[in-house]
Amino acid sequence: MDILNSLEWRYATKKFDPSKKLSNQQIETLKKAFNLTATSFGLQPIKMIVIQNKELQEKFVEHSYYQRQVADASHLLVLCIETDTPTSAIITYFDLEKEVRGVKEEVVSNFRKQLVDMYQNKSIEEKQLSATYQTYIALGNLMTVCAVEKIDACPFEGFIPEKIDELLNLKALNLKSVLMLPVGYRANDDVMSGMKKVRKPISETILEIL
Amino acid sequence: MDILNSLEWRYATKKFDPSKKLSNQQIETLKKAFNLTATSFGLQPIKMIVIQNKELQEKFVEHSYYQRQVADASHLLVLCIETDTPTSAIITYFDLEKEVRGVKEEVVSNFRKQLVDMYQNKSIEEKQLSATYQTYIALGNLMTVCAVEKIDACPFEGFIPEKIDELLNLKALNLKSVLMLPVGYRANDDVMSGMKKVRKPISETILEIL
Repeated sequence: MDILNSLEWRYATKKFDPSKKLSNQQIETLKKAFNLTATSFGLQPIKMIVIQNKELQEKFVEHSYYQRQVADASHLLVLCIETDTPTSAIITYFDLEKEVRGVKEEVVSNFRKQLVDMYQNKSIEEKQLSATYQTYIALGNLMTVCAVEKIDACPFEGFIPEKIDELLNLKALNLKSVLMLPVGYRANDDVMSGMKKVRKPISETILEIL
Repeated sequence: MDILNSLEWRYATKKFDPSKKLSNQQIETLKKAFNLTATSFGLQPIKMIVIQNKELQEKFVEHSYYQRQVADASHLLVLCIETDTPTSAIITYFDLEKEVRGVKEEVVSNFRKQLVDMYQNKSIEEKQLSATYQTYIALGNLMTVCAVEKIDACPFEGFIPEKIDELLNLKALNLKSVLMLPVGYRANDDVMSGMKKVRKPISETILEIL
């Protein structure tokens, strides 16, 4: 199936089949795909929590405006930001680059200094906003990967992050939840699955300059 | 090639081959993929500008911290937000849904009212931030689609949006630039193209709860 057919096949699944589970291999694909997401300067200030625990998933429902997908999906992915991007995170990134790519200290030192200075000038709020943007890149990547892999998914902004952070004890991990993506298989009777996509004509959403 | 190999193949292209052009069919794929991007409530408060004009692309260089990719790439994609999401945009969305899906007024009226109220309670800044998030979803989607289609790309936050808005006269169109994605073919001598990816181990970026 070509990529456009995959994107057409994808839809925000309203009702999952709670009896169907994704395979370990499918979950491994999503984990690797998340980790391969491009992030600003490669710093990866984001984390993904993969939940496969019905009892816990049920507790998400009341904090998700009673949308059942969080409980009924095979797995629930929660995309989080790290609450800070300290200088040490930047140093660690360049240490990793030196190790993985075998580049020398003098190759990275100038750019590292620039980046450290740039981040030291940002407020916590600015750093969190920048990290938040990266969770949306990951969401876009994951939804497309799911479409290619024929995994049903439903992107969620509609939940109360503070409640989810409490439920998962994220404060202790210096994390904040931003987005959720229940993944699994659509229920046979999900009325949305047969619906045509609603999209503006391309002539309205795209401008071309030749 | 499977999806993970595609994501491994992808990298932030540092040097494009200015002599190589993407085909019309490739550009059509990217346009359709952009339009199929999931957006919050399906409202699509974003637009993509597709530029294939070397003279114009050269003018981007000085506003992009002198990174040549914006000029050398086959095409330059600029992802923009609409500066407002007025009630009329919400009404138009539901009119389109009724038309495309053949659903009746009484099916949509409650949810439309909820959404109109929700957006009327948002400030312009909140609406712009929400739209900005959607451009990052589109970026994540487009980068993955490019990877699958073997199109080289380089995601860009590093430019001066106000200058780009001026250059493209976006204010008159009620748009603001947020992200850029030069697309095309890597140059044979792009030193970054042979580099290993730098990524934290999955054990650090992913938590699992069973």
